Amino acid sequence: MTTSPLTPAGFPASEFADRLALAQSAMAHDGLDALLLTAEPDVRYFSGFLTRFWESPTRPWFLIVPVSGKPIAVIPAIGAALMRQTWIEDIYTWDAPDPDDDGVSLLADVLHRICGPNGRVGIPMGIETHLRMPQDDWAKFQTLSGLQFGSDSGIVRRLRMIKSEAEIAKIRAACGIADRAFARVPEIAQAGVGLDVVFRRFQMLCLEEGADWVPYLAGASEQGGYADVISPAGPDPLRQGDVLMLDTGLVRDGYFCDFDRNFAVGAADQNIRDAHAHLVETTLAVAELARPGTTASELTAAMAKRLSAFSGATEAGRLGHGLGMQLTEGLSLISDDHTILEPGMVITLEPGLTLGPDKIMVHEENVVIRDGPPDFLSTPANPEIPVLEG
Amino acid sequence: MTTSPLTPAGFPASEFADRLALAQSAMAHDGLDALLLTAEPDVRYFSGFLTRFWESPTRPWFLIVPVSGKPIAVIPAIGAALMRQTWIEDIYTWDAPDPDDDGVSLLADVLHRICGPNGRVGIPMGIETHLRMPQDDWAKFQTLSGLQFGSDSGIVRRLRMIKSEAEIAKIRAACGIADRAFARVPEIAQAGVGLDVVFRRFQMLCLEEGADWVPYLAGASEQGGYADVISPAGPDPLRQGDVLMLDTGLVRDGYFCDFDRNFAVGAADQNIRDAHAHLVETTLAVAELARPGTTASELTAAMAKRLSAFSGATEAGRLGHGLGMQLTEGLSLISDDHTILEPGMVITLEPGLTLGPDKIMVHEENVVIRDGPPDFLSTPANPEIPVLEG
Repeated sequence: MTTSPLTPAGFPASEFADRLALAQSAMAHDGLDALLLTAEPDVRYFSGFLTRFWESPTRPWFLIVPVSGKPIAVIPAIGAALMRQTWIEDIYTWDAPDPDDDGVSLLADVLHRICGPNGRVGIPMGIETHLRMPQDDWAKFQTLSGLQFGSDSGIVRRLRMIKSEAEIAKIRAACGIADRAFARVPEIAQAGVGLDVVFRRFQMLCLEEGADWVPYLAGASEQGGYADVISPAGPDPLRQGDVLMLDTGLVRDGYFCDFDRNFAVGAADQNIRDAHAHLVETTLAVAELARPGTTASELTAAMAKRLSAFSGATEAGRLGHGLGMQLTEGLSLISDDHTILEPGMVITLEPGLTLGPDKIMVHEENVVIRDGPPDFLSTPANPEIPVLEG
Repeated sequence: MTTSPLTPAGFPASEFADRLALAQSAMAHDGLDALLLTAEPDVRYFSGFLTRFWESPTRPWFLIVPVSGKPIAVIPAIGAALMRQTWIEDIYTWDAPDPDDDGVSLLADVLHRICGPNGRVGIPMGIETHLRMPQDDWAKFQTLSGLQFGSDSGIVRRLRMIKSEAEIAKIRAACGIADRAFARVPEIAQAGVGLDVVFRRFQMLCLEEGADWVPYLAGASEQGGYADVISPAGPDPLRQGDVLMLDTGLVRDGYFCDFDRNFAVGAADQNIRDAHAHLVETTLAVAELARPGTTASELTAAMAKRLSAFSGATEAGRLGHGLGMQLTEGLSLISDDHTILEPGMVITLEPGLTLGPDKIMVHEENVVIRDGPPDFLSTPANPEIPVLEG
């Protein structure tokens, strides 16, 4: 059991000051008086407010990022003690939940004071965002505030895509925990053990190795490959000839890893061994191309070409994506994403092969884009698929 | 390690047919042609689609509930295999993510076909809801579809508040797992152990006892009470004289429990012992009043009165709430919530006492409202606070 932190918890205030300065420079350029943030990662990005209490959908939480000065929190009273531990100084609270006025008039007052009567307020409106407040209240609030709301022009998204070294250290810590948990899978998974039991035991390994919590685990164990990569576990036992796949997003100090590992139960057919080796080799080869200046689209094309040479890519929709404060965030490895890779981007490389009808195999690693070749945050898998007791 | 299911996984199709019939009757009454659902619990409530993949914010998912006929799924292709295992028959997919059109035109087409050119579509817009899709796409979609969108008048919220016996069985299973994990806390928590380690070990106990995953754990360990109930754990070790509180929402087959337990480290002062006994006795006494016909407001007043007799209620905002597919859902025990209790509602009773500046103690149990006294889903705590090794 890991008793000491792998990295210092949280961030120094300078980290938040840097993020704020970059945001404010972009806001000034776009003529925005403030950003209004409602979603967990966006609020945390500018405040450091880290709690699992977002699991409760009842209360809305608001962070205002003004074009000058520090962010202002407008939050339920239950969060005041924790918010006071962050670098945020201006904290307004109300007694939530309040069916008649759940922060709406307080937020309108505060925002109006900050922006003036004709203020322009940006909110994240693009891919991967949502407005975490009831639509009824959003409508009421817009009317009440009298301000102009529009898109944040992707400011928050673009900032969050480039990780600082302190953020990268946290993702590396999360990946290291998953590395150690995956190395111990032979202890917990053999033929005859129910897949649901394997899922429980694997999450226990992640915790024992230092995960704060395990928000994501998916996988499958089926003969000669599996049908999909997002299903929860059923009670069916692992069988000789299965390919077991475990894909985890565990969290350490608020940052995710996201990668999977495949295992053969008992023994692996030559086709499975070849597919696994091809996936691992594809990942390593494509990683060589993942450098500043290359686009997501180009990386996708290179990966798809290598997969076609074997048996064709899966139809899961993409061959990798960004990660960080969320399991998936930022760019997508798809042909239509022309994002240019930059140093500090953390992405997954996630090639998948179609092995037959309803039979796929997917492999995944996490890397950070650097000047030169990328830096692996997960320890790359060996080409030989590991074999579990049959 | 629990290897066999505590209850059969999922629900028979009749469960979904019953939910659908009730929704459609209310929709017909309100003149709605369809409901459009985007949030995880709402989509799952009418489809049975259960996956942890919602952790990824990248892709939107849509379920249409028409005023007659079965629900229709409009989802990313990556979810098709899993959705085909539910009772849903009409499944439309697109290759997500698609930066140019992430399901918007497909959803508009399908919904337009179902509702006709002047259809009225209800969406959940009230407390605890949000629209899980980008606001940009929501605006585009409304224009494209040419339909009229408004509130679902709380139809989904009201339905979800009354649990079926099959749902209650799942919540009871989740509570039983937490009961067993709490009983084993003395194995993992003693003076000198870091609170973060206690959190990790406690989640491992929950998994070992049968949790599918542990979406929520909060708590604290401080001298003579704690400052708040939503903080994550730090590395500080438990000390003699601390009150340790662990509050968990674990999931079994898609349903939550939500209750906490307090422990004294080493020994407990008389004041702590009295406070704990008062909280437990308050819970039991107020539970007697939690019967059909009583309002949430009345139950709140009864609980607040008993807490005032000791040292006053906390300012955490409410003294209990509904639970089920989410950690918190449905009614709130606050003075402004006049919801009338009905059989089948599952709620938490969560009294909290203020013990001094920044010192509170909170206790929580889960019950289902029945004709007559409620049925405890958590095994009620003893009045004597359990003492851990000092």
